[in-house]
Amino acid sequence: MEQMPAFILVRPQMGENIGAAARAMLNFGLTDMRLVSPRDGWPNERAVALASGASAVLESARLADSIADAAEGCDVLFATTARPRDMTLPVHTPETAMAEARRSIVQGRRVGVLFGPERAGLENDDIARAQAVVTVPVNPQFASLNLAQCVLLMGYEWRRQAVETGAVPEDGPVMATLPEVERWAGHFEDRLEEAGFFFPDHKAAHMKRSLRNLWARMPLTRSDTQILHGALRQLVRRRD
Amino acid sequence: MEQMPAFILVRPQMGENIGAAARAMLNFGLTDMRLVSPRDGWPNERAVALASGASAVLESARLADSIADAAEGCDVLFATTARPRDMTLPVHTPETAMAEARRSIVQGRRVGVLFGPERAGLENDDIARAQAVVTVPVNPQFASLNLAQCVLLMGYEWRRQAVETGAVPEDGPVMATLPEVERWAGHFEDRLEEAGFFFPDHKAAHMKRSLRNLWARMPLTRSDTQILHGALRQLVRRRD
Repeated sequence: MEQMPAFILVRPQMGENIGAAARAMLNFGLTDMRLVSPRDGWPNERAVALASGASAVLESARLADSIADAAEGCDVLFATTARPRDMTLPVHTPETAMAEARRSIVQGRRVGVLFGPERAGLENDDIARAQAVVTVPVNPQFASLNLAQCVLLMGYEWRRQAVETGAVPEDGPVMATLPEVERWAGHFEDRLEEAGFFFPDHKAAHMKRSLRNLWARMPLTRSDTQILHGALRQLVRRRD
Repeated sequence: MEQMPAFILVRPQMGENIGAAARAMLNFGLTDMRLVSPRDGWPNERAVALASGASAVLESARLADSIADAAEGCDVLFATTARPRDMTLPVHTPETAMAEARRSIVQGRRVGVLFGPERAGLENDDIARAQAVVTVPVNPQFASLNLAQCVLLMGYEWRRQAVETGAVPEDGPVMATLPEVERWAGHFEDRLEEAGFFFPDHKAAHMKRSLRNLWARMPLTRSDTQILHGALRQLVRRRD
């Protein structure tokens, strides 16, 4: 089977929209759907009714209760947002995002794309788990893409670039996988927590998010994360 | 006003779909809608209800009772079809069709795109009025694009080719200057030196070079370097 990106619907609200997203995906040959805490539980009759011919996508959808769980096995995560937030993640168009996804997949890495709930979209904490943001370049005076349309456009771009290009694998260093980066970010955060860095309390969550976000943006190789773990262990060992 | 293609809905059936098509168009800045013999007459309340913020597109839509009339003034016509028929017209993807549309418009010609009725699509007699066919390259085992989705993809391609794309953040963060990155790398190295990290001696130079190299490769913002300085100071303060 061709490797393909996983489309991860985060806290989707209406079953109908989940079904419509499944149809949108299957139009472009995508079948790896994952669901994080759908509002109305799972399975969902209305999703099945809407999906009709695409119900197999729903049946094989992986249900999870956190993004971390849903994205298990993904080395690269993109977060779709209606408008770029005040974050320092790189901002992709669907075109550049799917070009990058294809390069990653050709290199044997696994790619996930996060889609937020219908009304509010992804929260900052969700986005902080991604390495990059994807925003469809819509009319700034009228942006009204719904969930299935956003899924459709991402699926279309994936397929468009799959058909037209055979991306070439590059021989490069072995990049850190997403869990490896998260392990490093967690290690760094834990030691700073012990050192009393996250102060005052009301700023702690924001400070942690900024740091997670910082590491998520860095193109760390596996060997970089090993060096950083070692360096931090040494700084702390000396302290204790 | 920028010249843009006219989107011509031929014998559309459900008002809801006309409204959804208007929304899809306006997302990509397209406002020239034309309607050939909508089944339920015109104007249509359900179209207006669905269009919400895009109702201006409906209000200015030109009503016609034939394709010839609706396409008046168009020099080039594309016909969207679910699958290429046994016809001798050139078959485009949305991408190549909108590239050609753009070239035509730059040359001062006017472009129209025909979309068929929901159920049956365009008839051969309709298609015969066009110079080329456009087919979205969907999964041959599952093709289920609805009218508004087809409009959405064509609008997306129009807009995609209109704007310069790139993965560059708009109003991007302030990147750290080279001296700022070096100051951070030096700070990190100094604290590691004190902690006895560069051991054994004969490996020290290589280890330092690897770390300098690591930081030099990272796309650090100025604010990243400030956070990292602060974090390291706190780790060390606790130690002392």
